[in-house]
Amino acid sequence: MKAEIISIGSEILRGQITDTNANFIAKKLVELGIDLEHISAVSDNPESLLSTLKLALQRSDLIITTGGLGPTEDDITYHTIARALNLKLIKYPEAEENLKKFFKKINRTISPSNLKQIYLPEGAKIIINQYGTAPAMILEKDNKIVCSFPGVPHEMKNLIEENLVPYLKEKFPPSVIKKSKILKITGLGESSVNELIRDYINKQTNFSFGIYANPEDIQVQITTQAPTEKEVEKLLQSSVNQLTKILDNYVYGSNEETIEEVVGNLLKTKKLKVAVAESCTGGMMGEIITRIPGSSEYFQGGVISYNVRVKEDLLKVPSKVIKKYGEVSRQVAKLMAEGVQKYCHSNIGISITGIAGPGGATEKKKVGLVYMALADGKKTVAQKHQLFGNRQLIRLRSARRALNMLRMYLTEK
Amino acid sequence: MKAEIISIGSEILRGQITDTNANFIAKKLVELGIDLEHISAVSDNPESLLSTLKLALQRSDLIITTGGLGPTEDDITYHTIARALNLKLIKYPEAEENLKKFFKKINRTISPSNLKQIYLPEGAKIIINQYGTAPAMILEKDNKIVCSFPGVPHEMKNLIEENLVPYLKEKFPPSVIKKSKILKITGLGESSVNELIRDYINKQTNFSFGIYANPEDIQVQITTQAPTEKEVEKLLQSSVNQLTKILDNYVYGSNEETIEEVVGNLLKTKKLKVAVAESCTGGMMGEIITRIPGSSEYFQGGVISYNVRVKEDLLKVPSKVIKKYGEVSRQVAKLMAEGVQKYCHSNIGISITGIAGPGGATEKKKVGLVYMALADGKKTVAQKHQLFGNRQLIRLRSARRALNMLRMYLTEK
Repeated sequence: MKAEIISIGSEILRGQITDTNANFIAKKLVELGIDLEHISAVSDNPESLLSTLKLALQRSDLIITTGGLGPTEDDITYHTIARALNLKLIKYPEAEENLKKFFKKINRTISPSNLKQIYLPEGAKIIINQYGTAPAMILEKDNKIVCSFPGVPHEMKNLIEENLVPYLKEKFPPSVIKKSKILKITGLGESSVNELIRDYINKQTNFSFGIYANPEDIQVQITTQAPTEKEVEKLLQSSVNQLTKILDNYVYGSNEETIEEVVGNLLKTKKLKVAVAESCTGGMMGEIITRIPGSSEYFQGGVISYNVRVKEDLLKVPSKVIKKYGEVSRQVAKLMAEGVQKYCHSNIGISITGIAGPGGATEKKKVGLVYMALADGKKTVAQKHQLFGNRQLIRLRSARRALNMLRMYLTEK
Repeated sequence: MKAEIISIGSEILRGQITDTNANFIAKKLVELGIDLEHISAVSDNPESLLSTLKLALQRSDLIITTGGLGPTEDDITYHTIARALNLKLIKYPEAEENLKKFFKKINRTISPSNLKQIYLPEGAKIIINQYGTAPAMILEKDNKIVCSFPGVPHEMKNLIEENLVPYLKEKFPPSVIKKSKILKITGLGESSVNELIRDYINKQTNFSFGIYANPEDIQVQITTQAPTEKEVEKLLQSSVNQLTKILDNYVYGSNEETIEEVVGNLLKTKKLKVAVAESCTGGMMGEIITRIPGSSEYFQGGVISYNVRVKEDLLKVPSKVIKKYGEVSRQVAKLMAEGVQKYCHSNIGISITGIAGPGGATEKKKVGLVYMALADGKKTVAQKHQLFGNRQLIRLRSARRALNMLRMYLTEK
């Protein structure tokens, strides 16, 4: 069983958009245990698409197209699929009905060009699109399956999740279930992670592992297979447990979990409130924390102390300390954290002050030098980091290190 | 002259990464006036790659591959290209020298597997990679051009910019120069932009236009061609001028310009300083403003007044006003802006207070209701918006509307 994706649209070949749809579908196919062999992007030219489809019908069993289902002349997908398979286009009343409903909802009359969208290749199992005007389809013919979905990402994602995934699961119940789990690690570099877990990895025969370095964290992907879902889960969990034992508190989460979610849950459980004092990050840490719905339960707010006068006036950092040690210093970081903890009425104050660059460096203080501190009203601790990357990366890494400092504090025994 | 891109790497087909390299190359080809007909992604399987290469050699004149040039067994590009073209792999001493230099720089000894990287198909014009270990190449054979570049994005981009672009420019001097310019618009919806410029667009014969809606703005792409660079620029500029006349102050920039850059330049020119008071955006506006290097010249900082006590204590918003009108109200937005302007010692204070959702709505105040205000010490103005989208989109749109409010203020006549 070989699968192939065809992304249709001249805007991809003209570089106007990056084809992210193929990546979404590729991930789904991995989960279904289906091998994806080819991804192609073709323009709206009917002859290019026809030859690509013919080739795909030769070499693949399952062909998934996205794009080219709109109402304009450039939208040639169904017409060309019908040509490739020697089928007629026929009118689907369900599609016409959905179109009428859609236009009624947005209070407009159907434009004649939209009527094109109710014709699909004969024999197609139509998928009504409640997110837009273009119907999708699954078509079985001569032991081949051709499916078409709209190019608009959210329409495509919803329709595939709700229709294609269940269809494929039923049609091709996988003989073995293959699953992956991702462990997310922060505070360690890629090579340190590698060294720590190498011995363990080399001893495993049931698993495959991948280590990926992101600007934000290191991810270890664990993949395994077994005849049943339950067994796979059990195997994965045993490997996760062992790796977590080795990597200890450097593991902050798994799969889709984010560090702001993990920190938020810890704060909620402990009924603690946090406030931030940010210089070089300019509000980024606050922005990240407040991505989580309900963060008002544990986030008080804070001070963006970009200018020295804001540090002095709102955080009450004494100007003589700033003069003596400089704005980017351990001492100022500590006083910022203490100030924000106190004046924002929180249990914990966290601060970041650093040189994000490209300007602002001195002989002793290089670009990437960042101090961060955490104050809880009783004690104040600080960290010094020398970070790398461009301005935005240094800022992102600062905010994430500070979040991790908070996480470490909250998980201390 | 038909071009084709082949992206090589199983990580693309397994959905681990999105192929963004193809998009970069597609854009370059548009600039060079070269037609791109196909983009394919193939796994590290030699037979898949071989058949893809053979097909590409049949249907295209210029084939650009990325990926598969590393030192591991999965890296099969040069070996497979040699097979497809019936060429031997030969040792390139320049590549060996570069490899030695590279490993000396990082203070490590060359691993035996890296030595594979010094063999390229016979006849290739080698491109030494000063950014990594994998050499790139341009190979001409039988009226076909095959070029290979590493998959690591920054290596690929630099090597293509410095080598392939000049090579193609010299080899295929375009008969006409084709160029695009993007006008960036904020504060108007897609359909309003469409209605405003439709008459103008329909009258033009020398230009083609595209209108794209992003979460952040609306972009109008103007494309035209002429025999010389100078003429193209002149044509583009005349269209930009006319569209800017129609769209007026809704146009905030062009091409790569960002709104934070535009606002920053206005503040610098006018020697004004700004501070922000953010509730639902949690620091996002400050984060966006400080993306610009040197923003300390005009950005004072601000207050993240997520909790009501921070509004009261740091921004001095009277608690009776909050009780009377609610935290999300025109009155509180105005007092937040006035407070932050005063206490952060800035010329201008900007505030945002709203309901980002999914929780927090009441019968009268729906999710997406956002008030923003601007205070300059003399007068205070406020705006009410009802925004759509999920939590993060509402926050992003709030921050951008507030930035645009500041831009409008700074460009007022």
